Amino acid sequence: MTQPFAVIIAGGRGERFWPQSRARRPKHLLAIVGEKPMLTQTVERVRPLVSAENTFVITSALQAKAVREVCAAAGIPAANVVAEPVGRDTAAAVALAAALVAQRDPTGVFAVLPADHVIKDEAAYREDLRVAFAVAQEKPVIVTIGIKPNEPATGFGYIKKGAGDGAYFGCETFVAEAFCEKPDLETAIVYVATGSYLWNAGMFIWSVPVVTAGLKQHAPALYEGLAPVRSALEKNLPLMPALARAYRKLEKISIDYALLEKSRNVVVIPARFDWDDVGAWPALARHNAQDAQGNVLRGRVFVEQGKNNIVVSHDKHLLAVVGADDLIVVHTKDATLVCPKNRVQDIKALLKRIEAESGGRRWL
Amino acid sequence: MTQPFAVIIAGGRGERFWPQSRARRPKHLLAIVGEKPMLTQTVERVRPLVSAENTFVITSALQAKAVREVCAAAGIPAANVVAEPVGRDTAAAVALAAALVAQRDPTGVFAVLPADHVIKDEAAYREDLRVAFAVAQEKPVIVTIGIKPNEPATGFGYIKKGAGDGAYFGCETFVAEAFCEKPDLETAIVYVATGSYLWNAGMFIWSVPVVTAGLKQHAPALYEGLAPVRSALEKNLPLMPALARAYRKLEKISIDYALLEKSRNVVVIPARFDWDDVGAWPALARHNAQDAQGNVLRGRVFVEQGKNNIVVSHDKHLLAVVGADDLIVVHTKDATLVCPKNRVQDIKALLKRIEAESGGRRWL
Repeated sequence: MTQPFAVIIAGGRGERFWPQSRARRPKHLLAIVGEKPMLTQTVERVRPLVSAENTFVITSALQAKAVREVCAAAGIPAANVVAEPVGRDTAAAVALAAALVAQRDPTGVFAVLPADHVIKDEAAYREDLRVAFAVAQEKPVIVTIGIKPNEPATGFGYIKKGAGDGAYFGCETFVAEAFCEKPDLETAIVYVATGSYLWNAGMFIWSVPVVTAGLKQHAPALYEGLAPVRSALEKNLPLMPALARAYRKLEKISIDYALLEKSRNVVVIPARFDWDDVGAWPALARHNAQDAQGNVLRGRVFVEQGKNNIVVSHDKHLLAVVGADDLIVVHTKDATLVCPKNRVQDIKALLKRIEAESGGRRWL
Repeated sequence: MTQPFAVIIAGGRGERFWPQSRARRPKHLLAIVGEKPMLTQTVERVRPLVSAENTFVITSALQAKAVREVCAAAGIPAANVVAEPVGRDTAAAVALAAALVAQRDPTGVFAVLPADHVIKDEAAYREDLRVAFAVAQEKPVIVTIGIKPNEPATGFGYIKKGAGDGAYFGCETFVAEAFCEKPDLETAIVYVATGSYLWNAGMFIWSVPVVTAGLKQHAPALYEGLAPVRSALEKNLPLMPALARAYRKLEKISIDYALLEKSRNVVVIPARFDWDDVGAWPALARHNAQDAQGNVLRGRVFVEQGKNNIVVSHDKHLLAVVGADDLIVVHTKDATLVCPKNRVQDIKALLKRIEAESGGRRWL
């Protein structure tokens, strides 16, 4: 088997972990869980399977500087970090990923991986990824790793698991019958009850020819739109001008919608590892030590007569919560957030107001 | 009538407005309500009746530097600011006040006034104070101004109003039948229902001979203990060494308990002005503009979908509350507090813990 590639998509916005995350410093650049940036953890997690030279990171212009620093520290060549000039959702990023890998190995297999998820059982993760690479190497299919749901989440898309499709290294694979968009709660409950649905965690493994054929068939405009980029890569010309030229015209569409929902050659591997997308502040409680009252405390913080709070302070600033439960309190150098755990969905509205009323993006 | 004096007691601790107030910077040094420090407001409020030269301020060693600055800005002579070497409660402060005034006018009348209360109708306040000075000048009595209660507060002592004792400048005065310590709620409800009880706001007006006689009779040890101070004052010797010598041995006792509860010559004037001791953070809602949702906002603060919060930020730090009601959130340079309005009594326990666990008084 040829050496596989990994393309890590590190372009998310910083809204859900505001004020610690910002537009220029989103979740994947922070050690939201663990001691290293989530991006570094992602790179190191695949490292035994994928060399630093074979690891690409696609990010945004806004975050490029910080992402390059993190990648350099992880040994990834500077040329492997590519900044999209404007955000065009995941379909464009996947098409760009395919072009980047194709330049190095026109028949290579690669994994597209999100940069900011938490996976603790790294050995099991790599075992599943090894299976996925083998399947993608052997058969003209799109491989995805689905997560067994532990609740009827409405924040993820689901993958419907169909008939068995053979075992690799002792791991069962299945035909993916359908990709389903984020459901309402009622539908999610049905999904979970059937036992046939897995969460779509945005992990896709395929060969360059397979993903290229898929894009040509199902997203021809997008594929053609990236022709200047492929041309620059083939001729070893600077990438930035080609990206700038091509990207602005691309349709903004997710890879799920552009390709996966339309493909009939998708194989799903039910993950044998733990997984958490750490979607917002309350998720910290799942990954940090708690005091006897269930409080997660980071930094110089005090909770007096309160329980189940998440309290995060910065530097030596003293942050005290008295007589309150279930609050998120996050202090940073220039901004502090106080928000009940069950109201984090309203942070988005706050950020819109801050942008409108403070007349600038200084705090975003 | 000779020129009256005022002695302002500015020695309170900084606990109830933490983290904005600190041991070295308590409430009376802050503009908790209004634009000037509460002490400055107090000085200026009596100014039309009492000259700067006749205004004394008694404070603590810890706060002396900051109090001197505020007093200098208000035109009070440096010698009129006296720092107690250790806190010995209000009886010692009153005895010291009597000694200070006696040096300037052995038969003078003076008012003892707290430094950190809010009174908006200053003209009415001065009118009542003018009556009190006149009564204290004319009769050998202790005069106090009592506040008509608007709720059965358990945080104040009460004064029982007795028979009428004559009118001065059209203002009725009454015999004070009793000084009652802070009651429980049941008792407070009865007090308020009778219409005969007034809040004890710690405002006392008397002549030097009357207060001296009272102390000699009811608190002889305390009175004698201050002999070195009176001696130094008479001989124009430096005050500090005498205070240091005398104070440490004084009993720690309130003037209410040491003198007022035992005196039979007390006259009370029911205040004709508004009054608020601004006892803790929730009181800010009574003195500040509120947004349409009842939030008090100071500094660069945002409340998104929340009501009746008090949110105070410092400098340009952005402080945001999302989806929460009835919270106190106060950010300062080195410490931030989050506390429901109905839990402010627990701040004291927090400060004890901070002192114990942070191994120092840096944040207190």
